[in-house]
Amino acid sequence: MKIIIVGASGTMGRHLTSAFENEHEIIKVDFNDGDVQVDITSTESIENMFKKVGQFDAVISTAGPTYVGPWKNLTDKEFRKGVEGKMMGQINLVLIGQHYINAKGSFTLITGALSHDPQLNFANASAANGAVDGFVRAAAIELENGIRINAVSPTVIENSPQYFPYFPGDIPVTMQQLEYGFRKSVFGANTGQIIKPY
Amino acid sequence: MKIIIVGASGTMGRHLTSAFENEHEIIKVDFNDGDVQVDITSTESIENMFKKVGQFDAVISTAGPTYVGPWKNLTDKEFRKGVEGKMMGQINLVLIGQHYINAKGSFTLITGALSHDPQLNFANASAANGAVDGFVRAAAIELENGIRINAVSPTVIENSPQYFPYFPGDIPVTMQQLEYGFRKSVFGANTGQIIKPY
Repeated sequence: MKIIIVGASGTMGRHLTSAFENEHEIIKVDFNDGDVQVDITSTESIENMFKKVGQFDAVISTAGPTYVGPWKNLTDKEFRKGVEGKMMGQINLVLIGQHYINAKGSFTLITGALSHDPQLNFANASAANGAVDGFVRAAAIELENGIRINAVSPTVIENSPQYFPYFPGDIPVTMQQLEYGFRKSVFGANTGQIIKPY
Repeated sequence: MKIIIVGASGTMGRHLTSAFENEHEIIKVDFNDGDVQVDITSTESIENMFKKVGQFDAVISTAGPTYVGPWKNLTDKEFRKGVEGKMMGQINLVLIGQHYINAKGSFTLITGALSHDPQLNFANASAANGAVDGFVRAAAIELENGIRINAVSPTVIENSPQYFPYFPGDIPVTMQQLEYGFRKSVFGANTGQIIKPY
């Protein structure tokens, strides 16, 4: 299977690359690294990325920039980080990528438990995740040619200890659990699912 | 109670105005109608609206523009209708309005079942509703001075028969049920709830 990993240079992307690269062809995509570069906040850049990669079977997105910080500093301006990044960036990967992906291919986006389980300082991610969740359910009934779409929805991740203090009582999701979430989406048959890998 | 109704000239806004105006002071707000005008896609216009209204106790928003149409026509451009309208328009009503609302006041936004129960042609609303749902849960734990926030989440509404063919099998929510949803939010004590008025 030819799999595009967007955000391949991040913690999650590197783990998934090494987990899948022995059995599959991995195209590593990142902002300024990897095999092909993409700025997911630009539809033109996304279109160019897909043109360069050519036909493929799956997109895994681990690219989820959002604003993290005190509510009192949160205005429309800061909110746009998550709107353009984790939300529209990933939605545009699907709206554009559907025209390049092989029949029976799949899109797997990254979302998170903050959509339903908020934490202080993360309102932007709660909204962006909620948007991604809603979009995934809607896209699943629209996509044609057997193309599937799911999202993986972790809580705080074990490799991001800097966030632990912001998620009191949340049991960190391991990289292995996260990998299982992506495996379920990419190699399974479900669509329209928000996969909780814990 | 002094209540701002945003979208006061719409079907829902007119119903809520007549339901509440005998017992409360209603400030009717709309794009080009009502007591005060607002363009919810402009943060400057929202700020001006709140300045004109002065102190108040509740905001009810029924303003939810989104793109409705075939998936094949859905690109980033059409998607922005819901992002700027139902999503950021309502989020900015809260981010800005929190600085003008009285202590123990409330915000009630409009969302919809499409976040979890998609229908063809409404992917933009699914995403916008999901974002509003996530934001409401997050804002509820951030807002200070006893200020509350909820969203009312109907399916298709009885006064919009033009949408019935797009919601097969959905029992239309009556205007009375919808009114009860807003009553629960504005006059109750809950916060962070996505109220299903059916």
